[in-house]
Amino acid sequence: MIPYTNRTRQELEQAYEAELIAYKAYQSKGLKLDMARGKPSKIQLDVAEGILTAIQSAEDCMDGNIDARNYGELQGLPCARKYWADVLGCKPEQTFIGGNASLNLMFDVISHAYTHGLLHSSQPWCREETVKFLCPSPGYDRHFRITEFFGAELITVPMTASGPDMDMVEELVKDPAVKGIWCVPKYSNPDGIIYSDETVARFAALKPAAPDFVIMWDNAYCVHEFEGEFVPFPDIISACAEQGSADMVVEFASTSKITLAGGGISVLAASEANIAYFTKLFGVNTISFDKINQLRHVRFLKDKKNTLKLMKEHAKIMAPKFAAVADILDKEIAPLQIAAWNRPKGGYFVSLNAMEGTATRILELCKQAGVTMTPAGATFPYGKDPKDSNIRIAPSLPPVAELEEAMGVFCTCVKLAALEKLLNK
Amino acid sequence: MIPYTNRTRQELEQAYEAELIAYKAYQSKGLKLDMARGKPSKIQLDVAEGILTAIQSAEDCMDGNIDARNYGELQGLPCARKYWADVLGCKPEQTFIGGNASLNLMFDVISHAYTHGLLHSSQPWCREETVKFLCPSPGYDRHFRITEFFGAELITVPMTASGPDMDMVEELVKDPAVKGIWCVPKYSNPDGIIYSDETVARFAALKPAAPDFVIMWDNAYCVHEFEGEFVPFPDIISACAEQGSADMVVEFASTSKITLAGGGISVLAASEANIAYFTKLFGVNTISFDKINQLRHVRFLKDKKNTLKLMKEHAKIMAPKFAAVADILDKEIAPLQIAAWNRPKGGYFVSLNAMEGTATRILELCKQAGVTMTPAGATFPYGKDPKDSNIRIAPSLPPVAELEEAMGVFCTCVKLAALEKLLNK
Repeated sequence: MIPYTNRTRQELEQAYEAELIAYKAYQSKGLKLDMARGKPSKIQLDVAEGILTAIQSAEDCMDGNIDARNYGELQGLPCARKYWADVLGCKPEQTFIGGNASLNLMFDVISHAYTHGLLHSSQPWCREETVKFLCPSPGYDRHFRITEFFGAELITVPMTASGPDMDMVEELVKDPAVKGIWCVPKYSNPDGIIYSDETVARFAALKPAAPDFVIMWDNAYCVHEFEGEFVPFPDIISACAEQGSADMVVEFASTSKITLAGGGISVLAASEANIAYFTKLFGVNTISFDKINQLRHVRFLKDKKNTLKLMKEHAKIMAPKFAAVADILDKEIAPLQIAAWNRPKGGYFVSLNAMEGTATRILELCKQAGVTMTPAGATFPYGKDPKDSNIRIAPSLPPVAELEEAMGVFCTCVKLAALEKLLNK
Repeated sequence: MIPYTNRTRQELEQAYEAELIAYKAYQSKGLKLDMARGKPSKIQLDVAEGILTAIQSAEDCMDGNIDARNYGELQGLPCARKYWADVLGCKPEQTFIGGNASLNLMFDVISHAYTHGLLHSSQPWCREETVKFLCPSPGYDRHFRITEFFGAELITVPMTASGPDMDMVEELVKDPAVKGIWCVPKYSNPDGIIYSDETVARFAALKPAAPDFVIMWDNAYCVHEFEGEFVPFPDIISACAEQGSADMVVEFASTSKITLAGGGISVLAASEANIAYFTKLFGVNTISFDKINQLRHVRFLKDKKNTLKLMKEHAKIMAPKFAAVADILDKEIAPLQIAAWNRPKGGYFVSLNAMEGTATRILELCKQAGVTMTPAGATFPYGKDPKDSNIRIAPSLPPVAELEEAMGVFCTCVKLAALEKLLNK
């Protein structure tokens, strides 16, 4: 196959006619395929079926002297705090266990920052004239949405192969109105990048002008390798402490993609001083989060070692899907030189950059052929990709056969949109 | 026994010496008894043991076509919405299912009101010069704390035998700065009062000056009779709708005291327009609450009828405890005419009014004898009881024998504090 840009207009017209026929054939199939969200598939959920029977009786509900069934233990059951400390490489005293969604903990942290301020705030953020928040992009739409919801000015920071552009971050944090940054440090959403050791070290060494600057460290994919062995990752909390900025980072994680997406447990990890501060605030929100589910998780997952064993089962299901995506893109798109994409070894996404100005059109075409994808622009602040190029592919939900069909549709749409652009159609 | 106020100083001195000996005897026992919070006892938690095995397999996790294990269904599983509509007497479309604590839903509603406003707000409450909130007292400290946390001015409204003083409420809502009121309409915390039909009707007919005035209707004890049959209670949502104020009320409930205090499910019930509004807001907070636990609850509790059957089991455990409290107070305190208390048939508390100016001293004495109670003043805004008189007794946690001992200590402290006051000690 000759790259599109090396073809004559006539050759492009021919290619366009051919792709249009292929597209219409897909359309006539009445497909209904979903690659929109990082949803685990049914067989992945089955991997954790044992958690449903991990607690069977009143006796099972005891964590030492604590009856998990009753009120109390706002910071979480001791065994759950120990579990997360093991997984994240921090101390149990540095953890606070939340409900089924780490997103909710992130929301509450930013919400509390707005209404009451963080540990080192001189006033609540709502009193500040301007609050700016750094958004490495492409990134996670729900992160950006939280800070947008509270009226922060979202600043795009480009992603590099080793994480956010740290030169730019170091420059931007000199502005005291810049109050924080969103990070997915391991298998970033959607790029699947693991922040390099240097990037992590530069984060820990940040000296922001704002005393209450917060690194929102969403370690959502901390044990989520689907190819190769577990990749150890530095503990950001001790890294910041070593730099004299122990309170600058708040880390998050959950079991949503380890056990059950709709019924996991979450964790907030931070310095002891931050945990004390957040515990005081969360004590107004609630009495405690669901401790039975915490115990259920600890009984089923046991520890980091056993969790990594379970993740191998997820990997067996995920790897063929990512391979399928890569294979189809390599075969259908690569030779045409109209898009570039990453090849992650963990996480939930493939990030694809299509020919500039075609992402919206590609996803519109997909939709009209029955394939739902994350909307164009979603990976950028305010849902606006300045190059209209980035597309997040989420291959986890459909079975491989459906995924291959969906990717067939997708590749046809990528080609059609490129051809439309090149032909000014 | 002669009432204290009819005794001579010498008789009072004698009584004081006798009570002091009794008190010191209790102190020497090294007791550790807890009547501080409305915590269910272990045997009450055992009543719901079946919920731990209500879901055992992947197949059990289906609610129709919805896999409760996965992401989605922000408003809650259809079966859980139906369950709560049955219990509360509203429509499934008028419900939104939350996590394990209704307090968290209440916090989020007030928090959203402050940062973004309610459905009919012209601006977020944080932009208002003053926000006033009505607090029928004695009431629930955690309610008052939420509005205090956001800086509202808390206004005490006295409780009567039929609910809050509605003359006063109707007068106060003429002030546009008055944005809402906290209510526990059935078996109020701590008085155990059921709002009369007239009170409910007057609530529904309120015409507050603030267009975004909200009745925070915490129906925490909606099925929590421990004596006699279930008492039907009007649906406040339709009552408000009939008065043309469908959006004025937000109702809350949970299974914390039906199944498991630390692992129940909660509900927010309101007009369809309010549910749509809150769904939009909560969609920023989270992806969905724990749906497996929703399904577990519906499978175990089934419906209102079956829930009421289960509540009879709780009643069997609770009734003797409340009887023990009443018996001891009747025997030890009533003849002395130094306190008055209510005799609820449901809920979790006995509200006692001691001789004015003695509540703090009573609870200090209790503490020094190893009996933990809700702090004095807790049932009033800002934790300050102007008469220093109200004490909330929570008899649910200790076994009857321990409860009797704790009440023995308590009565001695009530007497001692009264004698100290009468003798100016």
